[in-house]
Amino acid sequence: MTTQQTQGPLSGVTVIDLTRVLAGPYSTMILAELGARVIKVETPGGDDAREYGPFVNGKSAYFISVNRGKESIALDLKDDGDRAVFDALLAGADVVAENFRPGTMEKLGYGWDELKDRYPALIYAACSGFGHTGPHSKRPAYDMVVQAMGGIMSITGQPGQEPIRVGMSIGDIGAGLFTTIGIVTALYDRARTGRGRKLDVSMLDCQIALCENAVARYGATGKAPGPLGGRHPSITPFQTFRTLDGWMVVAAGNDVMFRRFCDILDRADLKDDPRYASNNLRNENQASLEAEIETILAARSTADWLGLLDPAGIPASGINNIGTVMAHPQVEPRNMVVEVDDPTAGRLKVAGNPIKLSGYEDPPARATAPDVDQDRERILGELAARAVSA
Amino acid sequence: MTTQQTQGPLSGVTVIDLTRVLAGPYSTMILAELGARVIKVETPGGDDAREYGPFVNGKSAYFISVNRGKESIALDLKDDGDRAVFDALLAGADVVAENFRPGTMEKLGYGWDELKDRYPALIYAACSGFGHTGPHSKRPAYDMVVQAMGGIMSITGQPGQEPIRVGMSIGDIGAGLFTTIGIVTALYDRARTGRGRKLDVSMLDCQIALCENAVARYGATGKAPGPLGGRHPSITPFQTFRTLDGWMVVAAGNDVMFRRFCDILDRADLKDDPRYASNNLRNENQASLEAEIETILAARSTADWLGLLDPAGIPASGINNIGTVMAHPQVEPRNMVVEVDDPTAGRLKVAGNPIKLSGYEDPPARATAPDVDQDRERILGELAARAVSA
Repeated sequence: MTTQQTQGPLSGVTVIDLTRVLAGPYSTMILAELGARVIKVETPGGDDAREYGPFVNGKSAYFISVNRGKESIALDLKDDGDRAVFDALLAGADVVAENFRPGTMEKLGYGWDELKDRYPALIYAACSGFGHTGPHSKRPAYDMVVQAMGGIMSITGQPGQEPIRVGMSIGDIGAGLFTTIGIVTALYDRARTGRGRKLDVSMLDCQIALCENAVARYGATGKAPGPLGGRHPSITPFQTFRTLDGWMVVAAGNDVMFRRFCDILDRADLKDDPRYASNNLRNENQASLEAEIETILAARSTADWLGLLDPAGIPASGINNIGTVMAHPQVEPRNMVVEVDDPTAGRLKVAGNPIKLSGYEDPPARATAPDVDQDRERILGELAARAVSA
Repeated sequence: MTTQQTQGPLSGVTVIDLTRVLAGPYSTMILAELGARVIKVETPGGDDAREYGPFVNGKSAYFISVNRGKESIALDLKDDGDRAVFDALLAGADVVAENFRPGTMEKLGYGWDELKDRYPALIYAACSGFGHTGPHSKRPAYDMVVQAMGGIMSITGQPGQEPIRVGMSIGDIGAGLFTTIGIVTALYDRARTGRGRKLDVSMLDCQIALCENAVARYGATGKAPGPLGGRHPSITPFQTFRTLDGWMVVAAGNDVMFRRFCDILDRADLKDDPRYASNNLRNENQASLEAEIETILAARSTADWLGLLDPAGIPASGINNIGTVMAHPQVEPRNMVVEVDDPTAGRLKVAGNPIKLSGYEDPPARATAPDVDQDRERILGELAARAVSA
């Protein structure tokens, strides 16, 4: 059984999910986590992401991570018989989601203009590179392209060095999050108005929304912000420092913390240095303060420093890798790494659901992702039963 | 007037907003964009973010960006008179949102356990560094700390070099997005059940959710992924390249695009090179392929190359800075830079709303952010009128 994994706030909501690869599937994965039934409608060849590594016994962990808890039926939307099945699915659905290039659904005869008349309560959610309007609407996009185009790479990295890609797919994941907000908002709206809506989310738009502070900064100063390596643009000390055995961040975000930090460094003199008397002054004299601090921190290990900073209430951390964060003592109690038990891949750990809502369970295991077309017979049976009772 | 800026899908929803600085305010800003009435309840000194630069005529652009369209009333929640006002606000509210350190609301007598009995339909949204449960719950956190602790810095940057902070505050903004999903989901849930819920979002949890692919990769292989500079871990060529006058990204995501790319480079021989015959092989031989491509791309300008790549449908882009992305021809038609007209700061450009829903307006201007306590008289008047009519 790969039906919805648990009762949730979206139980009873059915999503017909045409999305592929990442932005759309991430969004519908969250809906499934919240209790929605997500029926993935794949081409007979299956979602391309099934071919993305790493693989466990030949099954893609990439795919499982963002498709767990969904059902699958393969349909060729150019075939009349399969179109009839798709029509029947839409008739019973609350949401249809797609992340094709704009125009694709229209060519298939399933554009919003057609659907809204046939299914006036259906919510149509589209997530694309550039949106369904505007002169660049039909251009292709990938995460890498919108990261470059949307400005986030221009503020990430070391000044004067090669531009850095944000290590997770913020282009796709960011758009997936806004798409999710839009879908749930449309569900709420429909509960009051009875009407479906079209949601039109663009990956590029989402990059601008994510970089709101840099946009406001440019709006206020006319100067485009640049990358700052491991530090914050307007708070000091609030950055990465080298230690004896690695790196750490210290975020002494106000005067009280700064003064406590100086005591821990055994440099009470810095507290009274007029160059460092306020955050604004520390920010202006960041380079000299960094040099003072760096020398001291470099003499001891990250663990040693954390042993002093944590009890003093100064926010600080080593730079965890994905393995060390999964072992962090706060992660298991928050159930943020959950397990799927896949018939092919076996037991696999994936990220949990950060939306913790009282009154709904957050079990430690999730249903796995389906094989292509795995739920066809059951879904067709349901549609037949519904046709008989109608 | 700083009341809600437009009719939206959340019109009629009232949010009592105790959040400060960034994660919480970003979330309630989205709710305001969707039509909710957001009443910011500040301490008499005001939100700390009012002191964060850059400033325009003394008013913080940082603050305006994430607080536009909200109202403000200043209350001292330790003062009996102000507590009575706060109680009256809660009695008329749909949502109360806070991003204090866990325990703060309980100390004030406004913890969920008290509120849920007094206001059974009230949604209580908490966003904190580590969540309201678990052994690290009460520790302080900032964006910088959860970026370091949550693993994203370990996969961002150049291999072997200093860890890089993601240039926007993904620790705060990511948590703000999940908080928004949770709040709207709870509103939908309440429309069906009549019950309020507690939402408990942790910034650290959200980092794990955002890094889902890296988590699944670690789960599948037991190896923690490292940083890869400007390239994608499993697709090639899909990365940053140097050109004659700067940098660009090319995302030739499949065989067809790779072959077209080779033609544009005038290197048809690469198409038939057995080392590059499939994406898997190109990925294995990334270094040698990169060297081949790099030499050619370095001979011409980014604009020249885009003039060849765009018509061929190969996703590519220069590295925009925030100024150039704001001037991108797709941005104005999508209304992704909007204007506030602030009585102090004047006209200021801020990021627009990427959640485009049919049937609701997306005007090119927004109401600005309020001064501290600006809406006190009107709000008190409303509460008095409500008390009389009750």
